[in-house]
Order: sequence, then C-alpha cells, then structure tokens
Amino acid sequence: MPNNRTLILRSRPEGMVKVEDFEVVDRPMPTPKDGEILVQNYYASLDPGLRKMLGATDGYWIPTPLGEPMATNTVGKVLESRHPDYKPGDLVTGTAYLQEYTAYAPGPMTWKVDPASRLSLSNSLGILGATGLTAYVGLLEVGRPLKGESVLVSGAAGAVGSAVGQMAKIKGCRVVGLAGGPEKCRRLIEEFGFDGAIDYKGKTREQLTAEIRALCPQGVDVYFENVGGIQLDAALACMNWGGRIPVCGLISEYNQTIDAEPMVNLFSIVGKVLRVEGFLSFTFKDIFPCALREIEEWILSGKLVYREHIADGIEAAPATFITLFTGQNDGKTVVKLADPTQI
Amino acid sequence: MPNNRTLILRSRPEGMVKVEDFEVVDRPMPTPKDGEILVQNYYASLDPGLRKMLGATDGYWIPTPLGEPMATNTVGKVLESRHPDYKPGDLVTGTAYLQEYTAYAPGPMTWKVDPASRLSLSNSLGILGATGLTAYVGLLEVGRPLKGESVLVSGAAGAVGSAVGQMAKIKGCRVVGLAGGPEKCRRLIEEFGFDGAIDYKGKTREQLTAEIRALCPQGVDVYFENVGGIQLDAALACMNWGGRIPVCGLISEYNQTIDAEPMVNLFSIVGKVLRVEGFLSFTFKDIFPCALREIEEWILSGKLVYREHIADGIEAAPATFITLFTGQNDGKTVVKLADPTQI
Repeated sequence: MPNNRTLILRSRPEGMVKVEDFEVVDRPMPTPKDGEILVQNYYASLDPGLRKMLGATDGYWIPTPLGEPMATNTVGKVLESRHPDYKPGDLVTGTAYLQEYTAYAPGPMTWKVDPASRLSLSNSLGILGATGLTAYVGLLEVGRPLKGESVLVSGAAGAVGSAVGQMAKIKGCRVVGLAGGPEKCRRLIEEFGFDGAIDYKGKTREQLTAEIRALCPQGVDVYFENVGGIQLDAALACMNWGGRIPVCGLISEYNQTIDAEPMVNLFSIVGKVLRVEGFLSFTFKDIFPCALREIEEWILSGKLVYREHIADGIEAAPATFITLFTGQNDGKTVVKLADPTQI
Repeated sequence: MPNNRTLILRSRPEGMVKVEDFEVVDRPMPTPKDGEILVQNYYASLDPGLRKMLGATDGYWIPTPLGEPMATNTVGKVLESRHPDYKPGDLVTGTAYLQEYTAYAPGPMTWKVDPASRLSLSNSLGILGATGLTAYVGLLEVGRPLKGESVLVSGAAGAVGSAVGQMAKIKGCRVVGLAGGPEKCRRLIEEFGFDGAIDYKGKTREQLTAEIRALCPQGVDVYFENVGGIQLDAALACMNWGGRIPVCGLISEYNQTIDAEPMVNLFSIVGKVLRVEGFLSFTFKDIFPCALREIEEWILSGKLVYREHIADGIEAAPATFITLFTGQNDGKTVVKLADPTQI
C-alpha cells in the first residue's frame, strides 16, 4: 500500500503564517465510502483565502482542525469510484485535501476535466478553474462593466486580478491596476495590457486617491476588490455614481499583521449609490461550462495570458503558501504532487 | 413686497455643527423663471443627510456656498407657475431652500400633495414623503426581507428607522433595533412593536455583537443601516449567508467628532456573500404612488405609527438641526415656516 503524504496543520498561526505551522506526515490510503471517489491528486491549489480556515474562530467556514490536512482544490485521476457519474481513469477537479490521495464526495465545485484540452492539466486549478471562473463571474456577473467604462482592479498582478483586467479589456473598458512594486506594475502594462498601473507600496490613502483620479479621469465604474484596507478606501473616493464593487477577497486583512486604519470614505456607498457585493463563484455554477469555453478561446487566441507558479512537491507547500502574503508569488500558485505524464 | 426670511450658511462647520454657523437674513422675493414655480413654504424638512452639504470638499453633491441657503425638502403652496403641470393654489412638495418663498424647477422629488388627504400636510416631508419612501424602498426594494427572516435596524428610534422596523413587522419578520438610551429602547418595543431593542450607548463592538446574537439567534438577514461605525461592524459579524445591507445613511460619520475605529469584520462581505448597497429613493420614483397609498393605508389602519417634531419658526432651525446629531430629537423633525390654516 503506497504512502499518502499529507500536509497537516500543526499549530494555529498567529499573525503571519509560518512554515512551522505545518508538517508533512504519512496518512493511510483512504477508502471511498458510498458516493465518494478516490482521487490521486496531481496538483493542489494554494490560495490566499485558505488562510481564513487556519484560524480558530470563524463563524461561517469550518476551521481546519489541528493535526488535520488543509482542504483545497486539486486536480487528479479517479482511481476508484463509488459515485455513478465517475469511473476510474476520469480526470477530475474538486475540493479535496492537500495530500497525495483523497477520497471525497463530488460537490458543486467538482467536475471532469476534458482529457483532450490543449491546455495543461494544472490550469484546471487556475485560469480554467476557480481562478478564471472567479474573475469571470466577479467581473462580468457581479461588476457588469459596460463598454467604455473604467475598471479598477486591486491585487492586479495576481492570478485573479490579471485575468480580471484582461477580461475587462476584452469587453472594451479602460483598465487600471493596483499592484506592489515597479516590476509588477511594468508587467500589468506590458504583459497584461492594462491602460495604467499604480504601485501601492508606501503610499498613503490620499496619494492612492490622487493617482487613481489621475489614471481614471472619468471616475471608476467597477472596482474589483481583492485587497481591502486603504486601497478600498481610496477607491471608494473615486467611484462614479452607480458604481459596483465586487468583493472577491480582502487579502490585506487575512494575517492582521498591520494595524488597520479606519475607513473614511464609506459614505460614498450612500452618496454615490454604490453596490458592494461579495460573491462566491459556485453560486454561478450554471454558467461554468459556457464560461470555461469562452476562457479557453481567449487563451488560445492570445487575448488572455496568464502566469503559473508550480511548486515542486508537498514539502515546498508551506513556504510557497507564505509567498502569497509577502507578494513574492508570481501568478497562479499550485503544488505539484505527482507528474501526470509519469503515471 | 413681503420679506423672504432665509436661513443661510455663515461658516463651514468643523466637527459638530453649531448654531453660529447659520444666520437668518432677509432675501428678496424670488421671481420664477420659465419652467419654475414660486412656492410659499409651509414646512421645511431637517435631515441628518443635510450635514454633508455643509462641508467644503464633497465630490458628489454641490456643497452649500457660504452666504447661501441650505437646500432641503419643503411642502407649500404654489403662488405663481411657469410650469405646465402646476397652477397657483396647488399644494406641492419638492426640493427648495430653507426660506419662506422659493422659486424652483420641479424635479424628480417634486409632486403634488392631495388636498383631500386625512393626514397633516407636514407629513408630506415625513412618513408620506422622503422619510416613508426611504424606509419603504430601502427595506422592501433593496433589502427584500422574506417572511420569517430577521431584520436589524440601526437608528431605529429615528423617523426612518422606526418606519423600517414597523414595515418589517408588517411583512412578517423578526425585528430588532439599535437605539441610544433606555427611553428610546422602551419606545421601540412598546410604541413601534419591535421584538427586541439594544441600547448601543457605551457598548464595545464585542458587546454589541453579543447582544445582537442573543436577540437574533437565527442570525441577521437584513441589516438596515443608518449609523455606521462599530454598529455596522458588529452587524457584519452577525449576518447570515446571503444577507443584505441597504445603506441609508452613516450618521455616526457626518460630524467626525469621534475617532473612527478600524473595521474588523469587512471580510463577512466575501465569506457570507453579502450585498451592501447604497440607495437613493428617487431612483425608485416609479413606485412612489403605489408606495404612498400603501403607507397611508398602514397609518390609517393603525399598523404604522410615527412621531413628528415640529420646530416653530425659522429661527429655531439651527438648534433643532443640531438635535439630530446629539440624539435629542424625537421623530421626524420639520420646521414650520407658515401656518397653512391661516393663509
């Protein structure tokens, strides 16, 4: 019986998550129950949002128990199936654990991956999975930009943010991104085709507001929010009447390592009749097949480019996870657990 | 030619507004231009939201110029009309100035008042005007509570808040209000029929959160927001998945006399897929006739009670305006400029 190397939570992180909060251990090979599938995981996704599940006091998600593995999306191959819709050999993406083999019941975010796709399997965790779908539904279904409107994106060099900006360009919008550091800002313009880029690092709320106004002289119609904090507050000051703020994440708050500043521009929500709306992509599951086809077409026609960072092996997962909060990551981050071409 | 006593802004208030920021002066009787009506104002409305227009730096409303009158809603009689839809003798409510006579062009919030109504004319500024319509569209069109859901209201003893709570009861919801002081809380229960009342004074965010949870054991589905600050933050912690937060006002922020605290529960917007939505009632103008009929029926059948505070004379306006921010006001506050029964 093979080993089943598994990343478990050893201690609850306080503030910034540390490598020592995790440990790789061997777990027994799971046995699928009725309705479940046993999956060999090839790739596992690392997302900033996973940080929330490591905390002890969370009212709406079940926190990861100490000594247990982190839940995350994986893509892999069905080895054994006790579910009528899946058979051994199917390629499948869904919510599993950060481990080599997981038995799980297919849920709303589980689906089969087309083995004939011309794109790499790992993309099912990124641009052709939760990342691309989050950008797609958040921008197009929640933000609903019209041609000619201005779209501002925070976390713009990240996996979701860079896809949002390019989709907004495809829809004929003016697009400005907020990112950390000159290299990421250069990339927004040169690689992702943004109309403008703002380096938020070391800036005050007032400086950010002035820079957004300068780059969005007609005001901001849609602000796609990944970050929170003073970036959100500055964006509120620049919104147009009737503006929309899809809230995808508030990454600046997850580790609570810096003192948050009070918001001073919340009144814009009333005065400019804004809609600030959280969303989770799976509530839009009905449009996934159509959205995935459209995203794949954009990629194959060169309209949508993306970066992927593949960490090699489960041991690399904790240090790689931390890069999501320090800004050292580069594109959609996944951990490779097995090589699909070798199996 | 009669005098036209007018309340003008003498100085821009810093922090809490002061009586000395205003002055009553005589202005010439206005002459209506083409498309305008000349109105003798019987009552003028005092609303917390007017405070925003007294500041100098406001991106979305035109601030009141120094030496000029405050714009507000009035109800009065048309003396002269150069607009095809109005004739002398019509009773009319609309946005005018805080003065005895105003010439203005009827806008989206201008309409004729039924002279046969069994309710007092001053109500056109309150429960049968902006106050009642704000409560109606904010709760029913933006918040959309379902029967059996829990509705939390801040500023619940105020003119809008008390109407919101009663309308939510009419729709079959559990209703809890936040108000300042035991007397207002008593009134929420005994006079307005709320299921629970929380006195926010002197409470921390954590205390408010615990009290909301105790009174809304099933969580909060709709939070009708008038106040902001830690009341908003505590409510965010108590919202149910898919909750809605119509943002009517953020009265705690208008004078910025207290240090705002950082928000710690904004992530609820993502994690619980909340919709936080500002609104202005006139964007729902199509439903006003229907809404006003329904509100009048609720009043006449005793299902909807309201309080009105009438300040006598334009000289009383500044001191009465200040009571809106100190919590000394009691119900919808209007200034009587002339007695309709004497004219």
